[in-house]
Amino acid sequence: MGGRIAVVADRIGWEERQLMKAAPDLGLRVEWVNDESLCLGHPDAQSIKDYDAVLIRSRSYTRGGLLATLAESSKIPTLNSAAAIHACENKLVLRTVLRDAGVPVPDFRLVVSRRDFAKALEQLPMPLVMKPVFGGMGKRVTLLRHPDTAHSVYDYVEDLGHAFEQACLVEPFLGGGSVRCFVVGRELVAAAEFESGGADWRNNAALGNRNRAAAHDPDILKIVNDVVNELGSGIYGIDLFRTPAGYLVNEVNHAPAFRAVASATGVDVPSVIGLYVQELLR
Amino acid sequence: MGGRIAVVADRIGWEERQLMKAAPDLGLRVEWVNDESLCLGHPDAQSIKDYDAVLIRSRSYTRGGLLATLAESSKIPTLNSAAAIHACENKLVLRTVLRDAGVPVPDFRLVVSRRDFAKALEQLPMPLVMKPVFGGMGKRVTLLRHPDTAHSVYDYVEDLGHAFEQACLVEPFLGGGSVRCFVVGRELVAAAEFESGGADWRNNAALGNRNRAAAHDPDILKIVNDVVNELGSGIYGIDLFRTPAGYLVNEVNHAPAFRAVASATGVDVPSVIGLYVQELLR
Amino acid sequence: MGGRIAVVADRIGWEERQLMKAAPDLGLRVEWVNDESLCLGHPDAQSIKDYDAVLIRSRSYTRGGLLATLAESSKIPTLNSAAAIHACENKLVLRTVLRDAGVPVPDFRLVVSRRDFAKALEQLPMPLVMKPVFGGMGKRVTLLRHPDTAHSVYDYVEDLGHAFEQACLVEPFLGGGSVRCFVVGRELVAAAEFESGGADWRNNAALGNRNRAAAHDPDILKIVNDVVNELGSGIYGIDLFRTPAGYLVNEVNHAPAFRAVASATGVDVPSVIGLYVQELLR
Amino acid sequence: MGGRIAVVADRIGWEERQLMKAAPDLGLRVEWVNDESLCLGHPDAQSIKDYDAVLIRSRSYTRGGLLATLAESSKIPTLNSAAAIHACENKLVLRTVLRDAGVPVPDFRLVVSRRDFAKALEQLPMPLVMKPVFGGMGKRVTLLRHPDTAHSVYDYVEDLGHAFEQACLVEPFLGGGSVRCFVVGRELVAAAEFESGGADWRNNAALGNRNRAAAHDPDILKIVNDVVNELGSGIYGIDLFRTPAGYLVNEVNHAPAFRAVASATGVDVPSVIGLYVQELLR
Repeated sequence: MGGRIAVVADRIGWEERQLMKAAPDLGLRVEWVNDESLCLGHPDAQSIKDYDAVLIRSRSYTRGGLLATLAESSKIPTLNSAAAIHACENKLVLRTVLRDAGVPVPDFRLVVSRRDFAKALEQLPMPLVMKPVFGGMGKRVTLLRHPDTAHSVYDYVEDLGHAFEQACLVEPFLGGGSVRCFVVGRELVAAAEFESGGADWRNNAALGNRNRAAAHDPDILKIVNDVVNELGSGIYGIDLFRTPAGYLVNEVNHAPAFRAVASATGVDVPSVIGLYVQELLR
Repeated sequence: MGGRIAVVADRIGWEERQLMKAAPDLGLRVEWVNDESLCLGHPDAQSIKDYDAVLIRSRSYTRGGLLATLAESSKIPTLNSAAAIHACENKLVLRTVLRDAGVPVPDFRLVVSRRDFAKALEQLPMPLVMKPVFGGMGKRVTLLRHPDTAHSVYDYVEDLGHAFEQACLVEPFLGGGSVRCFVVGRELVAAAEFESGGADWRNNAALGNRNRAAAHDPDILKIVNDVVNELGSGIYGIDLFRTPAGYLVNEVNHAPAFRAVASATGVDVPSVIGLYVQELLR
Repeated sequence: MGGRIAVVADRIGWEERQLMKAAPDLGLRVEWVNDESLCLGHPDAQSIKDYDAVLIRSRSYTRGGLLATLAESSKIPTLNSAAAIHACENKLVLRTVLRDAGVPVPDFRLVVSRRDFAKALEQLPMPLVMKPVFGGMGKRVTLLRHPDTAHSVYDYVEDLGHAFEQACLVEPFLGGGSVRCFVVGRELVAAAEFESGGADWRNNAALGNRNRAAAHDPDILKIVNDVVNELGSGIYGIDLFRTPAGYLVNEVNHAPAFRAVASATGVDVPSVIGLYVQELLR
Repeated sequence: MGGRIAVVADRIGWEERQLMKAAPDLGLRVEWVNDESLCLGHPDAQSIKDYDAVLIRSRSYTRGGLLATLAESSKIPTLNSAAAIHACENKLVLRTVLRDAGVPVPDFRLVVSRRDFAKALEQLPMPLVMKPVFGGMGKRVTLLRHPDTAHSVYDYVEDLGHAFEQACLVEPFLGGGSVRCFVVGRELVAAAEFESGGADWRNNAALGNRNRAAAHDPDILKIVNDVVNELGSGIYGIDLFRTPAGYLVNEVNHAPAFRAVASATGVDVPSVIGLYVQELLR
């Protein structure tokens, strides 16, 4: 039994190429569909109706939820679900959903204006991280070390940001390292620990020796399980901060890259994804 | 028994002022809270913790859902619910939710790129309406009458739109009139018919003589009931298009103006809202 | 005697490739320099100091004048001059400079706000053309045929435009055809007539049979001469509107494409440019 | 002999109010004209044709040059001249013009892309100042103290900036204090020294005791004279950096505020401006 899978993305990147390579052995056909030419809306949209499943891999942080909403409405099995993508795309909703469910997340303030920003600086001590509520790839995630320059950085948000781009989270900088958990279905299939460092404060270097341990750490397994309980089964990259008080969920990526985590752990991620898609089609 | 209600908005407009005036007779205190200085995020956020309920009336089309999410997370009764506001703020999600539930909505195409736009022009005949997926107050809702100028209008979306601003709906222009239904709780409390006309194609003039009929039209009552079933109880402005094939839901406003509908029907909207809030507090 | 010429551009397009091909026969070396990595500012900027001349061919409508200003300040012969590029980049300045010098240009209104736009609609009859003061490639040049939709198109400028992007010209739609004049130095080296038509109102088709005549039309020659008197010698694409009252200068392009005009007229434009650069280096 | 003066501005601020108060004693009528409703373009534009002079005081950093260009073209005496405003609005052009004329200015790099930014960080040591080429009121002028966060700040320019907003200057942070020179006509009418400090790195506090000295410092007088030689007579706020190697011109404001400098020096700035306008009308 086979299946024809549309990988909806802006381009064929490394991850998409691996998925295409792994597909034939699993009896799947994986094809790239440009996320700019779907023209969805009609319930029987031509551009996706001949596919058995749709895998949303848009790097754009604005298209995934919209496209998944319409693909689901066209009754095509869609990964991830529109509900999960919408939650992941909105860092504020994600944090709140998880916190309300008892999953540990960092403290934060929603900043939609200069006034909010000034209050957040009063309520939280430096250093702070400012990041967009909507965004991806670590872009515009900046570190505020000094109160006397914070407002001049915020000028860029206020002057150049438009609509949703003006919504930011401000949160304590937690330092320490991070753990990236790659989830397929409900399982943690790979975990890699990273230590920050290098020329940019956002840079990371994998700590190979700790990866096996991370994948079996009961605290991590519990958090992953709780996150999947909230978002539903799917393919997720869960970023954890390691703090003295335990792990906190930073974000969940709904179209996660997996090159670094595959390389650090040796896990054959594309085949695991392929098997999961295969199961869904049964 | 009283209650202290925060009306979260960018300013005190006509509607907010009416709510404040109607409040004392209902034993309520209604206070304006600037939506730019809430600095929400902490579960016990100072700015709202002393209120018995929060009424989200931001005219901004980007803040309502974010603020409601955090107000609910702080366990303050919030109108409308974050889920309802998120659905109303995203015209594509709203249409899809309603269509999937069998509520009649216009045909449409999601346009996230020039390619989508070209395809939508092929699939749907002129005249067409182009509107932002995220937006309010009728802004950027434009009528495309001629194929030869459509792409030069789309240039503005492509060149000046950023992120979510680039997502548009393209849909058939349905002409005819419209009906605005004002809902409180689960009830249709006022309905007014409008006829387009005047210097701007979006202008409307109320047809006073048809308002009583509209409020009792069984087709309208069914649609309103179905919409509330999907979104949950709340305060909504439901815009219907009147077409030869029946009514279609155009949009649902989660922080609806009510000056025109109150004036056209004579309904005391602020008191109806106040009574509904009062009930919620019991 | 040879010379090393930097063609400063965002990429090597058709025009740049032709210039590179024509160069060796003229004893010139033409090299592409990415306009994104010049890092100019220091008087002896490394990125350009070994070139004998700089030819600004950025397709960006924002970089040309800035880069030419600094290249000139570094004492490198620069084409076009910074003053000419600044004038061409600003459609309002260009029109005003030419009109003040007695060169015929279309009537227009500067629109920097909704109020200006409303006044322009009162002062000028439909159909009208709206275009950005700063822009290129015909982008956002739109035709307003109907007063009742004009304001909904302007919404895009008002809501999405930022800073200089909000400045527009509104002018009468002149219909008729256009003449593109390609100037090198002070000479009109090619002229081609175009007739509008096709799927987009901005489309053009060359009228080959009239090109020889255009290049010798005394009215055109006088206008070209007057334009060059104002801007100085250089490489320009001058767009003329043909009207019953004579030719009007629409715009002057400071980094003009020349594929269409070369093809329509058979003129070897790259060699003419090469010869002109050669002369400058003497 | 009297005169009717249009003060073209977005609103009546403190400065405009002082000019209106000082006017009657000088036989002048000063009236506010909203810079959003001029609808200039026609040579005999109605909105300004009955004024004897136009004083451009737009706080917008995009309108002044456009409006002055058209006011001059309508043959109304205009302050400042369009040429001066265009030079002041473009921090890069201003620096280059002054440097080419031998006026001392800070070193800087023009950054139009991530590549330029990376090169600028290589060429200039931290701390650095990043500022928009086009902008005003100190907005987006930020201090980069640490290489590891610089790129995350630049993300905001790259992701949110559009067109001209992407053009930045990067320059050494010079610390020390600054001197603000208020020029009317060709004269330095007031100078005040400021010391940075306080909650924002851009804050300043006037040093009253040094103001008299500054106004007679021959180095300052020479720089002011040289700047006016380049820009022509007019009303300018010239910002100088005080460095161990002498004064450097930071920027020249073409619609300068004068509350701080008037308060620090006791000079009756509005009357000095009024007298200058009076002279121009003779």
